Amino acid sequence: MGSENLFKPVLSSWLEQDGPQSDVVISSRVRLARNFKDWNFSGAGVELFARVREELGTRDGFSFLAMGDLSVLERGMLVERHLISPEMMRRQDFGAVMVSDDERASVMFNEEDHIRIQCMAPGLQLEQVLNEAFVLDDELEINMPYAFDKRLGYLTTCVTNVGTGLRASVMVHLPGLVATKKLQKTVEAIRRYGFVVRGMYGEGSRPASNIFQISNQVTLGKTELEIVQDLSDVMEQVIMQERVCRTKLKQTFHIAMEDRIFRAYGVLKHSRILAQKEAADAISDLRLGIQMGYVEHIPSQKVNELILFSQPAFLRRFAQRDMNELEEKVIRAAAIREILDTY
Amino acid sequence: MGSENLFKPVLSSWLEQDGPQSDVVISSRVRLARNFKDWNFSGAGVELFARVREELGTRDGFSFLAMGDLSVLERGMLVERHLISPEMMRRQDFGAVMVSDDERASVMFNEEDHIRIQCMAPGLQLEQVLNEAFVLDDELEINMPYAFDKRLGYLTTCVTNVGTGLRASVMVHLPGLVATKKLQKTVEAIRRYGFVVRGMYGEGSRPASNIFQISNQVTLGKTELEIVQDLSDVMEQVIMQERVCRTKLKQTFHIAMEDRIFRAYGVLKHSRILAQKEAADAISDLRLGIQMGYVEHIPSQKVNELILFSQPAFLRRFAQRDMNELEEKVIRAAAIREILDTY
Repeated sequence: MGSENLFKPVLSSWLEQDGPQSDVVISSRVRLARNFKDWNFSGAGVELFARVREELGTRDGFSFLAMGDLSVLERGMLVERHLISPEMMRRQDFGAVMVSDDERASVMFNEEDHIRIQCMAPGLQLEQVLNEAFVLDDELEINMPYAFDKRLGYLTTCVTNVGTGLRASVMVHLPGLVATKKLQKTVEAIRRYGFVVRGMYGEGSRPASNIFQISNQVTLGKTELEIVQDLSDVMEQVIMQERVCRTKLKQTFHIAMEDRIFRAYGVLKHSRILAQKEAADAISDLRLGIQMGYVEHIPSQKVNELILFSQPAFLRRFAQRDMNELEEKVIRAAAIREILDTY
Repeated sequence: MGSENLFKPVLSSWLEQDGPQSDVVISSRVRLARNFKDWNFSGAGVELFARVREELGTRDGFSFLAMGDLSVLERGMLVERHLISPEMMRRQDFGAVMVSDDERASVMFNEEDHIRIQCMAPGLQLEQVLNEAFVLDDELEINMPYAFDKRLGYLTTCVTNVGTGLRASVMVHLPGLVATKKLQKTVEAIRRYGFVVRGMYGEGSRPASNIFQISNQVTLGKTELEIVQDLSDVMEQVIMQERVCRTKLKQTFHIAMEDRIFRAYGVLKHSRILAQKEAADAISDLRLGIQMGYVEHIPSQKVNELILFSQPAFLRRFAQRDMNELEEKVIRAAAIREILDTY
């Protein structure tokens, strides 16, 4: 059983290593929405919960967690680990999640759909995570057949998911495109391919931490593999553009980049009061510094630790108590200093 | 001969130790303006220069430096060491300065007056530096009597110095009074005693680095000792008020103070481009942090090194070349990082 670590301030093991193209792509994720044929799409909660707990509650290599058994803090930590949705966090009655020991795979029950299968991996490896999701998908269907229409595909609660039920997404770090003011053009190109870019706070404003989610909008009319391959192709373009921008920044603004990166490091290393937004921006700059070779003494995986451990639920777990807004900023600064202590 | 060190990036030896009350008072300085009886007050330049060089050029424990023999950079370094005035820096013809090996005492020749004797010491010790200045004063007069009027006292080129010819001043660090918005009231009280507070950039604005010069305005009607004792008495009041403010800050805004101080330390320790104003502010905060006990691992004398070595002429000496504005900021950041390297 790997569930003990879920609620400790410990990094998810799949985040302990870099993946392909991880200078730009933080992680790849695939989600499949499924519903069982013989159950109501909504209102099946209590019976469905009993059934899946019986079927899957003791599955090898997985932990089965009922929302009703978890504290608000524990559910918050699962959200911050991207293992459950904020929506699932509020389902205290019949919501449940099954999490693989390495935390790459999770299956939510009684979220918007009966089943939401999710697989994640570091870097750009969408096909890989799609295949992992398919394996779980097939296993889950053995005893409980899915609602499937020959013409439409998988049937879902919300019409936007009908068809493949697939949402493929990548979390990308684009500080180069942002700094050289090329982001808007890139976002428009991405949209023309039918993908959505999220994570910006309003048009034109500097996005938080330069981190974006790019995902498919359409779940119908293409196969799962086509969706994932198209997104991967678009991503290769985005990665190339981001790298060109970084090279240009290094050539043209070398010392200014170094200054920006080490000032961010200084903020993380020394501040005593640290708001989430400021921490996120500084962590983003530090990540860029590591990827661009300015910062050589910090392993890139430390950045994932900083991102995870500066979240509200993790900080409460770290401090082992609830806290007000100022205390949270103080504990965030302390947690980050502790992570960077030997660097 | 101690003059070699004057033009090296080395701290003046008298700044290597703290003085009395040095949590608030950085240094004490006394200056005596004198003119020789048998020489014109202005226009005596070339002959006076020849005479003092002959009399004092090889005096034991002192270096005699003719402005005409020094580069612009070397004269700049003497200004930044507070050994000559900016006015003297421009006197290439017959200006000269005599500097004691420990750099506590210096005598300028052919500045506004024939002679300007100056003595400095760390912390609050005005009587001590006045006595040191008097010793030099007496020695210089032996062979060349001063212009002195029984009613008026010492005669000077500018009427504002007539009488004692004394300017006594202290350089103080008042971040507590500034942060608690008590400075204005204190400045007004100081003025009522006939002293001047300098170093503010316009009324009401945050002064650079919270460092101020407090000095006497009147040179007539009191003895030298009275002037110095009055200024010392006023300073004791100011020191007490500053300490009360610091204690209050620590009690009321402990974590915010710690945050401010360590962020400043982070800027000094990590930035790659550093303007003089930003450096001065950060050094001021670091000094406060050391004096308040927040920063325990840096000796307080390091602050004097940071102040001196972040000045333009020192940076050019450090880099051994001239530089533009951006380069100066880059070299300043590098010099400061080197000083703090082991801390």
